[in-house]
Amino acid sequence: MGEAIVSDLLTEILIPVAAVIGIAFALFQWVLVAKVKLTPERQTAPPANNKNGSGDYLIEEEEEGFNEPNVFVKCAEIQKAISEGATSFLFTEYQYVGIFMVAFAILIFLFLGSVEGFSTKEQPCTYVKDRTCKPALFNAIFSTLAFLLGAITSVVSGFLGMKIATFANARTTLEARKGVGKAFITAFRSGAVMGFLLAANGLFVLYISINLFKLYYGDDWEGLFEAITGYGLGGSSMALFGRVGGGIYTKAADVGADLVGKVERNIPEDDPRNPAVIADNVGDNVGDIAGMGSDLFGSYAESSCAALVVASISSFGTNHNLTGMFYPLLISSMGIIICLITTLFATDFFEIKAVKEIEPALKRQLIISTALMTVGIAIVSWLALPSSFTIFNFGVQKEVKNWELFFCVAIGLWAGLVIGFVTEYYTSNAYSPVQDVADSCRTGAATNVIFGLALGYKSVIIPIFAIAISIFVSFSLAAMYGIAVAALGMLSTIATGLAIDAYGPISDNAGGIAEMAGMSHRIRERTDALDAAGNTTAAIGKGFAIGSAALVSLALFGAFVSRAAIAAVDVLTPKVFIGLIVGAMLPYWFSAMTMKSVGSAALKMVEEVRRQFNTIPGLMEGTAKPDYATCVKISTDASIKEMIPPGALVMLTPLIVGTFFGVETLAGVLAGSLVSGVQIAISASNTGGAWDNAKKYIEAGASEHARSLGPKGSDPHKAAVIGDTIGDPLKDTSGPSLNILIKLMAVESLVFAPFFATHGGLLFKLF
Amino acid sequence: MGEAIVSDLLTEILIPVAAVIGIAFALFQWVLVAKVKLTPERQTAPPANNKNGSGDYLIEEEEEGFNEPNVFVKCAEIQKAISEGATSFLFTEYQYVGIFMVAFAILIFLFLGSVEGFSTKEQPCTYVKDRTCKPALFNAIFSTLAFLLGAITSVVSGFLGMKIATFANARTTLEARKGVGKAFITAFRSGAVMGFLLAANGLFVLYISINLFKLYYGDDWEGLFEAITGYGLGGSSMALFGRVGGGIYTKAADVGADLVGKVERNIPEDDPRNPAVIADNVGDNVGDIAGMGSDLFGSYAESSCAALVVASISSFGTNHNLTGMFYPLLISSMGIIICLITTLFATDFFEIKAVKEIEPALKRQLIISTALMTVGIAIVSWLALPSSFTIFNFGVQKEVKNWELFFCVAIGLWAGLVIGFVTEYYTSNAYSPVQDVADSCRTGAATNVIFGLALGYKSVIIPIFAIAISIFVSFSLAAMYGIAVAALGMLSTIATGLAIDAYGPISDNAGGIAEMAGMSHRIRERTDALDAAGNTTAAIGKGFAIGSAALVSLALFGAFVSRAAIAAVDVLTPKVFIGLIVGAMLPYWFSAMTMKSVGSAALKMVEEVRRQFNTIPGLMEGTAKPDYATCVKISTDASIKEMIPPGALVMLTPLIVGTFFGVETLAGVLAGSLVSGVQIAISASNTGGAWDNAKKYIEAGASEHARSLGPKGSDPHKAAVIGDTIGDPLKDTSGPSLNILIKLMAVESLVFAPFFATHGGLLFKLF
Repeated sequence: MGEAIVSDLLTEILIPVAAVIGIAFALFQWVLVAKVKLTPERQTAPPANNKNGSGDYLIEEEEEGFNEPNVFVKCAEIQKAISEGATSFLFTEYQYVGIFMVAFAILIFLFLGSVEGFSTKEQPCTYVKDRTCKPALFNAIFSTLAFLLGAITSVVSGFLGMKIATFANARTTLEARKGVGKAFITAFRSGAVMGFLLAANGLFVLYISINLFKLYYGDDWEGLFEAITGYGLGGSSMALFGRVGGGIYTKAADVGADLVGKVERNIPEDDPRNPAVIADNVGDNVGDIAGMGSDLFGSYAESSCAALVVASISSFGTNHNLTGMFYPLLISSMGIIICLITTLFATDFFEIKAVKEIEPALKRQLIISTALMTVGIAIVSWLALPSSFTIFNFGVQKEVKNWELFFCVAIGLWAGLVIGFVTEYYTSNAYSPVQDVADSCRTGAATNVIFGLALGYKSVIIPIFAIAISIFVSFSLAAMYGIAVAALGMLSTIATGLAIDAYGPISDNAGGIAEMAGMSHRIRERTDALDAAGNTTAAIGKGFAIGSAALVSLALFGAFVSRAAIAAVDVLTPKVFIGLIVGAMLPYWFSAMTMKSVGSAALKMVEEVRRQFNTIPGLMEGTAKPDYATCVKISTDASIKEMIPPGALVMLTPLIVGTFFGVETLAGVLAGSLVSGVQIAISASNTGGAWDNAKKYIEAGASEHARSLGPKGSDPHKAAVIGDTIGDPLKDTSGPSLNILIKLMAVESLVFAPFFATHGGLLFKLF
Repeated sequence: MGEAIVSDLLTEILIPVAAVIGIAFALFQWVLVAKVKLTPERQTAPPANNKNGSGDYLIEEEEEGFNEPNVFVKCAEIQKAISEGATSFLFTEYQYVGIFMVAFAILIFLFLGSVEGFSTKEQPCTYVKDRTCKPALFNAIFSTLAFLLGAITSVVSGFLGMKIATFANARTTLEARKGVGKAFITAFRSGAVMGFLLAANGLFVLYISINLFKLYYGDDWEGLFEAITGYGLGGSSMALFGRVGGGIYTKAADVGADLVGKVERNIPEDDPRNPAVIADNVGDNVGDIAGMGSDLFGSYAESSCAALVVASISSFGTNHNLTGMFYPLLISSMGIIICLITTLFATDFFEIKAVKEIEPALKRQLIISTALMTVGIAIVSWLALPSSFTIFNFGVQKEVKNWELFFCVAIGLWAGLVIGFVTEYYTSNAYSPVQDVADSCRTGAATNVIFGLALGYKSVIIPIFAIAISIFVSFSLAAMYGIAVAALGMLSTIATGLAIDAYGPISDNAGGIAEMAGMSHRIRERTDALDAAGNTTAAIGKGFAIGSAALVSLALFGAFVSRAAIAAVDVLTPKVFIGLIVGAMLPYWFSAMTMKSVGSAALKMVEEVRRQFNTIPGLMEGTAKPDYATCVKISTDASIKEMIPPGALVMLTPLIVGTFFGVETLAGVLAGSLVSGVQIAISASNTGGAWDNAKKYIEAGASEHARSLGPKGSDPHKAAVIGDTIGDPLKDTSGPSLNILIKLMAVESLVFAPFFATHGGLLFKLF
């Protein structure tokens, strides 16, 4: 077998050290961002290299009233309003979610406790029959605990992300006066704060939990890691509400603001006269930042749990090989270090000097982190794994070599890069697909929508092949464990992925603040350029989120099938097939709910904005202030109310199907929702991204072709705005929420598997 | 076991008799339609009951210039132009399709012939090992023959449908002058001609083929019915090109005509000044009529073949029980008779006197035919089946009772009705879903699209449950044979289904002709009312087509798995799972192609229409005639060119996957495309139908609410027109083509199964 080179003790030290380094780095970045003051500076040293004459990155101080206190006051004020709005929404959301959390925790305890009738007797283990495992009642208690830990970590991750984002947005705006490079670094550092905090926090809490749980479980690793799965469930269920609630919030405000502001009143985006403008900016932070953060944290937690639970019944677990067992955590630790180095490439090793350098800089982040991480994976696989070991594969043990596991992780990582680049190709206005969509605006909104939908459908092809190949290779090499670590591979650079992803909404907000503070056109152009790149990176981030979700859920699915002791998920048994077709329907049901919610909430917003324009005298002239708070309230109320039905659909489906129809049908549902949901999620998010950037393409007018479609207010531009508005709920509400639908149903099934296996399928038992 | 009551001889007589009755009835209806003359009548007897004062169904003769020869000439002229355009397109299409047909026939022969190396030696049978079956070479020859027969029957069905539709459209217009009831009957009778011709023809050719093939095959029923499967493949592959080519044709013309005519030039739909107007009307006939006809014929042929091939390896086949074997054909025969009676309810037993009676009359057709057919199925099951028999179920024989088979067929039939009514609910503007969509037009096209998409997604839920329940019940009762006969049950009332379906485009054309011939506003209102009902029935028809496609493909899939001797299609083997996820992607790929094709072709059409408006002096004023022929040519060329890539995708995927990846992966692909495609197909077709009727709802202004959104040309109406245009390719091109994608891949896999089972999976064999 060959022993691992790294000792168990070293492993126990390395993981928390990496996590602490990650947290420290995040705090350091935060300090750097905080150096940008929201008050006028006494002395401003002009940047050293402003003499190269490009003129694009620095504006004369005079022109901008560089130190004009008024601008600072305004920016600070707006930032405060956004931050308060976001905080207040999240607190409201967390209250509701808190109630759910407690209720669901009780449910978990009752369901799992009832498996052995709340007995406190030790029992023979499920997989290694000749050993004794801890009583089911304690598994229920620890699963519930893990669930709560996951949920709290998820909430904290999302909340901290929102905090730094609303801390950074006005600072980015102010830095934009000094040049696009400065603004970029501020936005990017803030994104990095979020990325590293989340990655390191997730790892740290998981590590601590395992070690604490082990105090009770001792040698019963099977029970230990089964209980730990609750961590993933907790993370993902919070992410569901974050994504759906935040998504409805942000898009209700955005769509409502645009429909009245841009379309009816013909005022610019983010104009301070628009009553919904603060709600819109709040939305970016609660939806795109907090929601995305919780989502990716969920993926990370789940893929770790999926890998751990499979490992615990493989030779790592049965032989109590701790270093091998912790391989997933070591990969994540390595990821934090690699991402740290990668970040320096964006913030310190290179400098952005012109608008056109932004997108390449962000793309370089992906390439650098992927290339370095490949080496990192090789190192971890060589040091931490024995040269050969066995992996549990549906009842039999399969022999796997360490270099095979390296390939599993690496293929996931590279598949992520491929998905990222394909997403970029289909959503960036530097390439023909988006330009074609923009061109179709000539003949109106209808052709724009037709071309946009077709683009989204088409953009599914390569990512699906990338996912399929990863699955095939990693499964062939190391069964379900291979798929779980492939997902981990894709998420190993999560800190960088999140940094460039969070960068987007921060830049979007910065643009909004520039507009609201009445800054000059040139500043707005810079923030727009930051934002356009941000749209693409947001789409890339969603691509990662979806790709990893697909792998994660398959891994969880496999773990569920093992735990529920299903012999085979044969499509041609009626129980499984009806599960499959109904499962494939669920993403549609879910999307119908979320899209309708956005639509209805937007209509309410439209009415309120119209009412204010019609009843507040002097609002259009800019002499009176709109009532921002009412719009914030509408978004808050709508999203809280509307997130419940889709949330219930996702949370209850596995429980109902498992309890009444049994594990085979549930397996069908999971497979169906996975293969169907991943397609809608990718196409929805890319269609929306393409429409958004087609609009920006026309607005920016950077080429002959783009100018022939513009300027703002032309018929093609109007058609593009309609497409953009339609894309909003697709790309920011229904699309990304589908990841969570897929993952959450899988992890929930896994957690409840012991119950379903024992008591499930009531309906078939009755008849 | 208990013998069947009907003797084999009687069965051999009853089936052709029913088919002949169906054909005779169709011809009789044609004669009735032909009684409406396209020349002025000498004496017009005023309808007898025009004294009840409703005033809605009869116009004073004076007002309309009842016998004015000019109107007749104009109508006849326009009809001729449409008919010629349609005929010429279909001939062009058939030329290309003919080449494909020959090439594919050769392919079938080569692939199947090579299974046993073109040996002419008899071989042991696949299922009943102790019997001897005919040589594989002859199976190849007869499969090829059956393929050609199916293809030709499909082409003939589509062509005849188009002929009667273009024969009836002007006649419907002329009858609309006499009253809405008269017009309705003309349109409906013409639809019936198509429905009965198609159902009876399909049955007749199949029956004859089986009997002729039996002259060679004798007692080798296994080989006989394996070869007959080619009939389904032929029917469906022609349907693919018909649907895709016709779909692109009709929507390129429709979208192009609307974008310039309605949106830019602000002239009414079907205005004779619009150069694309003839192409648009031609499109209705080649897409909605010929395409739909081929599609449903394909479903019918495939479900019969699927049932027959399973029956041939069940006790019916192995015991040479001919009546039992022909149970599927007897069901279809009964269906023809039942539909004949049902038709009389629409044409003779009741009379339509007002616009509001149209939709109920059409819905009544569905209910009556379903209720009567339930009795019909019971009779056939009681008379033709032994009280107990065995059905082949993946290697074992399952005992089934005759009443169980009755339930299988009946549940399919009723599931069809449920799907029909759900479709109606979501697409008719009499109910709140469409009214909500119309209401969302207040805030513009974006909310209209968001609400419309959400509606389509939501409309999937109940049909999927209906399909799932049918599958579960019929599979539990009679395995794959149960599913095949459930599909047959859904299609047993195909004659009525097609009649009410074909009625739609005929009415649409009639409206177009009324507009082009410059008839009065009131006539146009009547044809619009006929057309609005037609939109809903078209959506219902599509619902049937999709529902039956889902059942048919599952049955074919089951037959394929049996034939390819796959033990289990286990989702959790990597080979199957990658097939599943890639299969679920295919409908997106396919839709991307077809939607983009429509978009591009429409853009070309827009340019041409604009060019004509700009360069032909007097065109807008109505003093000069547009050049219709160029627009017809653009649609023809575009659709012929653009139908090849999606066609190739569908036809080549099973061949490539089967040959290189083997039967397990292919099984995954089939299951994935089935469960994913059925959702997109339903949602696309309902979204499109809802948008169309939301627009019509605003235009008709029949309620307070509708009037508040109108009139034509108001902002909400403009938003509704955009939605309608987007919906066009969804509901008439990409959506309905997906049925064929699903079915065709399944039947193709089944036909090639002997080859794949022997020589498939090259890639895995190599590595």
